[in-house]
Amino acid sequence: MRIHIVNPNSSTGMTEQIAKVARRYASAGTTLDVTCGTGAPASIEGYTDEAISVPIMLDQIRAAETRGADAHVIACFDDPGLAAAREIAQGPVIGLCEASTRVAMMLSSRFSIVTTLARSVPIIEDLADAYGAGRRCRRVRAIDMPVLAVEEEPERCAELLAAEIRRARKEDNAEAVVLGCAGMADLCIRLTKETGVLVIDGVTAAVRLSEALVGMRYATSKLGAYAAPRSKAGGFPREVA
Amino acid sequence: MRIHIVNPNSSTGMTEQIAKVARRYASAGTTLDVTCGTGAPASIEGYTDEAISVPIMLDQIRAAETRGADAHVIACFDDPGLAAAREIAQGPVIGLCEASTRVAMMLSSRFSIVTTLARSVPIIEDLADAYGAGRRCRRVRAIDMPVLAVEEEPERCAELLAAEIRRARKEDNAEAVVLGCAGMADLCIRLTKETGVLVIDGVTAAVRLSEALVGMRYATSKLGAYAAPRSKAGGFPREVA
Amino acid sequence: MRIHIVNPNSSTGMTEQIAKVARRYASAGTTLDVTCGTGAPASIEGYTDEAISVPIMLDQIRAAETRGADAHVIACFDDPGLAAAREIAQGPVIGLCEASTRVAMMLSSRFSIVTTLARSVPIIEDLADAYGAGRRCRRVRAIDMPVLAVEEEPERCAELLAAEIRRARKEDNAEAVVLGCAGMADLCIRLTKETGVLVIDGVTAAVRLSEALVGMRYATSKLGAYAAPRSKAGGFPREVA
Amino acid sequence: MRIHIVNPNSSTGMTEQIAKVARRYASAGTTLDVTCGTGAPASIEGYTDEAISVPIMLDQIRAAETRGADAHVIACFDDPGLAAAREIAQGPVIGLCEASTRVAMMLSSRFSIVTTLARSVPIIEDLADAYGAGRRCRRVRAIDMPVLAVEEEPERCAELLAAEIRRARKEDNAEAVVLGCAGMADLCIRLTKETGVLVIDGVTAAVRLSEALVGMRYATSKLGAYAAPRSKAGGFPREVA
Amino acid sequence: MRIHIVNPNSSTGMTEQIAKVARRYASAGTTLDVTCGTGAPASIEGYTDEAISVPIMLDQIRAAETRGADAHVIACFDDPGLAAAREIAQGPVIGLCEASTRVAMMLSSRFSIVTTLARSVPIIEDLADAYGAGRRCRRVRAIDMPVLAVEEEPERCAELLAAEIRRARKEDNAEAVVLGCAGMADLCIRLTKETGVLVIDGVTAAVRLSEALVGMRYATSKLGAYAAPRSKAGGFPREVA
Amino acid sequence: MRIHIVNPNSSTGMTEQIAKVARRYASAGTTLDVTCGTGAPASIEGYTDEAISVPIMLDQIRAAETRGADAHVIACFDDPGLAAAREIAQGPVIGLCEASTRVAMMLSSRFSIVTTLARSVPIIEDLADAYGAGRRCRRVRAIDMPVLAVEEEPERCAELLAAEIRRARKEDNAEAVVLGCAGMADLCIRLTKETGVLVIDGVTAAVRLSEALVGMRYATSKLGAYAAPRSKAGGFPREVA
Repeated sequence: MRIHIVNPNSSTGMTEQIAKVARRYASAGTTLDVTCGTGAPASIEGYTDEAISVPIMLDQIRAAETRGADAHVIACFDDPGLAAAREIAQGPVIGLCEASTRVAMMLSSRFSIVTTLARSVPIIEDLADAYGAGRRCRRVRAIDMPVLAVEEEPERCAELLAAEIRRARKEDNAEAVVLGCAGMADLCIRLTKETGVLVIDGVTAAVRLSEALVGMRYATSKLGAYAAPRSKAGGFPREVA
Repeated sequence: MRIHIVNPNSSTGMTEQIAKVARRYASAGTTLDVTCGTGAPASIEGYTDEAISVPIMLDQIRAAETRGADAHVIACFDDPGLAAAREIAQGPVIGLCEASTRVAMMLSSRFSIVTTLARSVPIIEDLADAYGAGRRCRRVRAIDMPVLAVEEEPERCAELLAAEIRRARKEDNAEAVVLGCAGMADLCIRLTKETGVLVIDGVTAAVRLSEALVGMRYATSKLGAYAAPRSKAGGFPREVA
Repeated sequence: MRIHIVNPNSSTGMTEQIAKVARRYASAGTTLDVTCGTGAPASIEGYTDEAISVPIMLDQIRAAETRGADAHVIACFDDPGLAAAREIAQGPVIGLCEASTRVAMMLSSRFSIVTTLARSVPIIEDLADAYGAGRRCRRVRAIDMPVLAVEEEPERCAELLAAEIRRARKEDNAEAVVLGCAGMADLCIRLTKETGVLVIDGVTAAVRLSEALVGMRYATSKLGAYAAPRSKAGGFPREVA
Repeated sequence: MRIHIVNPNSSTGMTEQIAKVARRYASAGTTLDVTCGTGAPASIEGYTDEAISVPIMLDQIRAAETRGADAHVIACFDDPGLAAAREIAQGPVIGLCEASTRVAMMLSSRFSIVTTLARSVPIIEDLADAYGAGRRCRRVRAIDMPVLAVEEEPERCAELLAAEIRRARKEDNAEAVVLGCAGMADLCIRLTKETGVLVIDGVTAAVRLSEALVGMRYATSKLGAYAAPRSKAGGFPREVA
Repeated sequence: MRIHIVNPNSSTGMTEQIAKVARRYASAGTTLDVTCGTGAPASIEGYTDEAISVPIMLDQIRAAETRGADAHVIACFDDPGLAAAREIAQGPVIGLCEASTRVAMMLSSRFSIVTTLARSVPIIEDLADAYGAGRRCRRVRAIDMPVLAVEEEPERCAELLAAEIRRARKEDNAEAVVLGCAGMADLCIRLTKETGVLVIDGVTAAVRLSEALVGMRYATSKLGAYAAPRSKAGGFPREVA
Repeated sequence: MRIHIVNPNSSTGMTEQIAKVARRYASAGTTLDVTCGTGAPASIEGYTDEAISVPIMLDQIRAAETRGADAHVIACFDDPGLAAAREIAQGPVIGLCEASTRVAMMLSSRFSIVTTLARSVPIIEDLADAYGAGRRCRRVRAIDMPVLAVEEEPERCAELLAAEIRRARKEDNAEAVVLGCAGMADLCIRLTKETGVLVIDGVTAAVRLSEALVGMRYATSKLGAYAAPRSKAGGFPREVA
């Protein structure tokens, strides 16, 4: 089985972290094909960063299809371009937010999410709602740290996360906490140990869920919203000089 | 990895069918431990059948824990006793309706469900809603056939299902259809071929999702709703003569 | 008119309390038939306790039907087995949570609920939502006291409840507060006096609502979800040795 | 116990019908105080009719309070002025739509409503939603007959209703049907017999529910939305020449 | 273009304030026709005040139609009688709460509302929900000041509002705040400057939105809920002695 | 006042149509700055077309800001890139779907939308829901015609639309119908005349609403979700060779 993991931003450091965690959790027989958004924003912190990164990511999806990808993981917690990627891919496509919120809903009755910047809170609230979390997602919290600082100052990030997870436990009665940034994946086990709360990471969740979907031998339905893009002038695939 | 699959009803025929499909889709390294609700109703068609079958099923869950189960699949589309089972089990527990509706939401934008009897329609609508399907579940349909007839008259059942799946495609604009009964699992591939619609089966979905959750090394959170049952007179584990 | 009140747990002390409050509020012409879940858990604190108590309770419902019950009250705030009981009974069936939240919605625009243990909070939130409370139920609060302690330490329980009701008034702007445990029924009038907030008890609400439904001469609809259980091996009525 | 039933429109014929049905279903010890909206529109068919009738109805509520009313029933299916009446009354106030939809939710899992004119359909949909019916109210249907024609042509009305109830059963899978007009109350039993569907009438439901609320010895909470109107120039009570 | 602005209460002071703000924001070519609810309550603080003011307001709407009004603004934040006014008017009708919440949804992703009295909080929550704000309206807050005090003590009102807006920013993460009372309109610009938060006023929003709707050359649909009131004894137009 | 209207696709024919309708409905003093997505897909029919067109559109938004745009209209019914554009623009930004559904909600109680291809139905359903339409949007319908065919075969398109609008009136009880494609703008008045139903066009709605927002002197809040994109490698503004 071949899983393509695309980090839609251009940070090679974060891409390596994602690859490391993905390898740790992938099944023995799974080949991982990890790519990154060359030329895309260095981090995705808001709608514009998402918008600019998506066409580059769709090119990566297409290229990975050519290399025989059975499924794709969009390794960013905002799930940018998820629906578009489903139009382009044959197999399943899953993003970190969808994967981890679905896992949280299968392992707890109420959970919270902790992300980086406050500006991402409404984005993630809307995603969780679109995935059907409703009142089961108690609250989306932010540690007020830019995405790239997560990588640069892992120790400070871990401390801020631990404090926020404890607040989620106490104030939200959260039974589990989802880490709301791909760059936090490596801190997951440590945070569970430190806080006693089930901490869920999107990379881990998405890698295993995508394997599961491939194992079911189901593919993305092409009968409606996710049908292949219609062929047209200026349409997909983009002419890349 | 050891997955316990419990059919909460007492039909050995249906249990064998479930085991057959589960074996077909399980990963190579997975050991399946398939049990059935001895003494439970022969089929589960409504709330009372569910209620009577659940304590027996919880005994099976407990026994399977002793045998080292890493996760449990409740192989009935009404997901009877799912929350109670999560209190008792250490590892993940998943039911067919939750598994298949979550899969349908990852592979299509809109889907319908086809079940056996009309009396089960509101039950399944409420479940799909609890799992966050909202408007994404277009409609729950019934073929008006008792559960055990599915096993006894597979050919007629397949015809009725194919017709209803086509109606779901045409009238509901469903992009995928979920089979709403454990006994229909074996018809899944055939129905996809016949109708051209992505048909999703709960046994397949639940087996692979439970493997995925175990692979993530997450367990059911014990901090709130799914904490182990409190010890008390008359409480769990039941004194079984 | 004959109203069957079943306490699904096996606590005779709590059953007596429930009977006392029920008698105080029942209409003059009403005969009360109060039963209790012999062999069931001593208290209901979570999904497993519910699951084990329900088959015993359904036997009580059936026996009370034989004795001529016009309606049934499930005297537990988790409303365990409510839908199954509606399949079995001819007349109306109502649980404490449904009764008291419907009453709260007719007498206030916003209310809160105070229950015993924190683990019951998500259970009650889901029930209130299923009964259509939506944002009208401001918050479900817990005093962190086991169900049986309510009976054993009524004075401490009353103090904790009064404090939580005042918090509900101040923090939630609740206009009324529902007591979320059958064992709290006897404290209702006193708490209203002490706090100045309308405090609503489920036993009181359910007894009078069940009388009202009988007085309307309506019965539970048998056309769909609440049709009598289908006859089958292992099905209802259970063979009780 | 003294129940005030106010028909907010000025039709004496409809008021008599309402009084007749109310007397048939009220408890033995209940005194009914039936009033009507003298000077109000002859029927209530839309928002403007409601708006004009409400101040007159509030005067009736106030006068009935003086006469010792323990509770009030607003005998119109649009529940006009319900919240305002709750500000003015000490005891409980209930409208036909709220009463009958709450009863329908306690006796069936899914129901439909049949009203007079199509223009009332969105009004009733919004009310049912405000009372928390959600997907449990399958559909609001209209027989396209003005309110006063219900009284003038009862036979034709009964036929149209029977046909629509059968459609609700067949097309909506409704397990119960609520009659969406006070003027239809007298047809309720006959329609249940003719169609085999549980037919629920708002007058019956509201009379018994208001008795039940009084029997619980609860009153409308005065702590928030339903506090008494603040005293002011031009405010309530109105100067009536 | 001729816009009729009706203040449904009888306060001439507040009517002048509303007229002043309306004139400041109306387009050059717009004629404003400002009326007030002579004989209506001096302020609208709850459902009864609303109910009594609406018939008088509907007379004003009708009179303004005769004078050639192209659209109507109901200059009260509770939007009293909005649906009834839409039945009577040919052109568009808009209330302050609908106008300002729609504007807030177009300029921010999350907002809060600050109103006068706590008793109005549930009223406004229900309105915001009816207009589709959902979770985008973070919270409705009150400064606990009667409506007429807003006019009498503008300085104290401004201070209380500024404090509450800052709390909305900090505690609710509100990106914008809507002023929940017509009498606060004149403080809007000042509050934006003082707090750094986008503060939105309903009078400003409603005047410009009503102009916009007229400019689109659309009128209120008369095909369903907003069809003209049916002619009947006691119906609209009211006989005014 | 200067309104920038960007057609995110590259069809010059459709851009001219949009400009024509915009000019017809814009206020006298408004300067229109109409641009189109040079290099973007020729039409937008699905998520991938949207994704590819958005970065080009954001460049147009930025360039128009430099030219002094007071507000921006995204002239495509899928509202592609709306949130990103709000990050980039100072003034208000509005898309056709949001504009027209908000207008429909102010002029009718229930409406339907008619779009081009069936694949766009779930996209538009999700948008209408995000804008708070809920049950007020009865149904999204499709005429099964590609976007560019709307321009090429206006006569056939008008016939298909008229038929679908009549179905929306009859089957959905729609009081108004929104045209779900920028290319249909010019047919709006004619369709209202032919069908007797209020037909609402997004270009008309968006032009006037954007003028209204500018007239209120409000701008997009920069305090949260719509704050300017953070500066970073690969971020906005894009390096355009």
